[in-house]
Amino acid sequence: MSAPQPPAYFPAPRRARFCSQCGSPVSRRVPDGDNRERDLCDHCGAIHYQNPRVVVGTVPTWQGRILLCRRAIEPRYDTWTLPAGFMELGESSAQGAERETLEESGARVALGQLYTVIDVPQVEQVHLFYLAEALGPALDPGPESLEARYFDEAEIPWDDLSFRTVATTLQRYLDDRRRGGAFQTHHYTLDSRR
Amino acid sequence: MSAPQPPAYFPAPRRARFCSQCGSPVSRRVPDGDNRERDLCDHCGAIHYQNPRVVVGTVPTWQGRILLCRRAIEPRYDTWTLPAGFMELGESSAQGAERETLEESGARVALGQLYTVIDVPQVEQVHLFYLAEALGPALDPGPESLEARYFDEAEIPWDDLSFRTVATTLQRYLDDRRRGGAFQTHHYTLDSRR
Repeated sequence: MSAPQPPAYFPAPRRARFCSQCGSPVSRRVPDGDNRERDLCDHCGAIHYQNPRVVVGTVPTWQGRILLCRRAIEPRYDTWTLPAGFMELGESSAQGAERETLEESGARVALGQLYTVIDVPQVEQVHLFYLAEALGPALDPGPESLEARYFDEAEIPWDDLSFRTVATTLQRYLDDRRRGGAFQTHHYTLDSRR
Repeated sequence: MSAPQPPAYFPAPRRARFCSQCGSPVSRRVPDGDNRERDLCDHCGAIHYQNPRVVVGTVPTWQGRILLCRRAIEPRYDTWTLPAGFMELGESSAQGAERETLEESGARVALGQLYTVIDVPQVEQVHLFYLAEALGPALDPGPESLEARYFDEAEIPWDDLSFRTVATTLQRYLDDRRRGGAFQTHHYTLDSRR
């Protein structure tokens, strides 16, 4: 007899087939008093709501250069991103942004203001990027990054950026900096065209 | 034989006991390459991540008066709130804010800028409030509101507001308006003291 194969782990899809509370099969319908379909358990009564996720990140700089990380994970393996990731329970978006920056690049930063708030409804996400100043030049990329380095403005790999939220945040940052650095919070929505 | 009792429905708690994909019991541990505990299914491999939720709402005004709704639901039944609720899949935060305003008060609004971004880590939420101008004075509160009405500044029921995010958003709005109405996006974090 061979040992059981360890499963390949994967993030659970949004759609439930079984109730997380009692294990019974769920049904997909509109609960009384609601106006959209949910996964409902008619055995124990649990309603399995699903909501958009928040992605938190930073625009980290050191002596005017901008920190980017080359992704070691899908999606967008081997493209360049600002450090960012899913916000976790129990943290503020600022704490999450600082945590992701440290995890992905090893950079310790002093967080600045909330800089971009970007709705991305087609992927059910809201992205929040903070300005951040590195406390030193040292980098130590974690397992989610192939590499982390600082870029001069002219070196930014525009054709190899991971996500539109990264590209648009960088564009606005560089524009604001050229105009003298009066940074305000930018809010916008990305449409589904690319 | 009597018919089976219909269950009392309730939002499923964060913590899973069974896998939503295959119905097997889950275990609580740190996945390889991760740094926090998740509910994991060792049968099919599904990882059940949980993330903070986004609450979206508006500061609706009509001829300078501010719209509040008296809650017909828990938590904070029978207290006054700005129209707001959980952001849904497939919508932008602006669309969600407009939807919640219509559902809770019947007001149709022209949405203005993103006004407050409030981290509330102790309840695992981020709140986003938009400025909004009502397109007319008509109100038609839905089942989640006992009542909806417009308030002059002096009438605002400060001691009967539902949430600190509502009170702090109203305070900032009235301050900005007194200073001449140069509205910027405010971002702040509520600590767990009340």
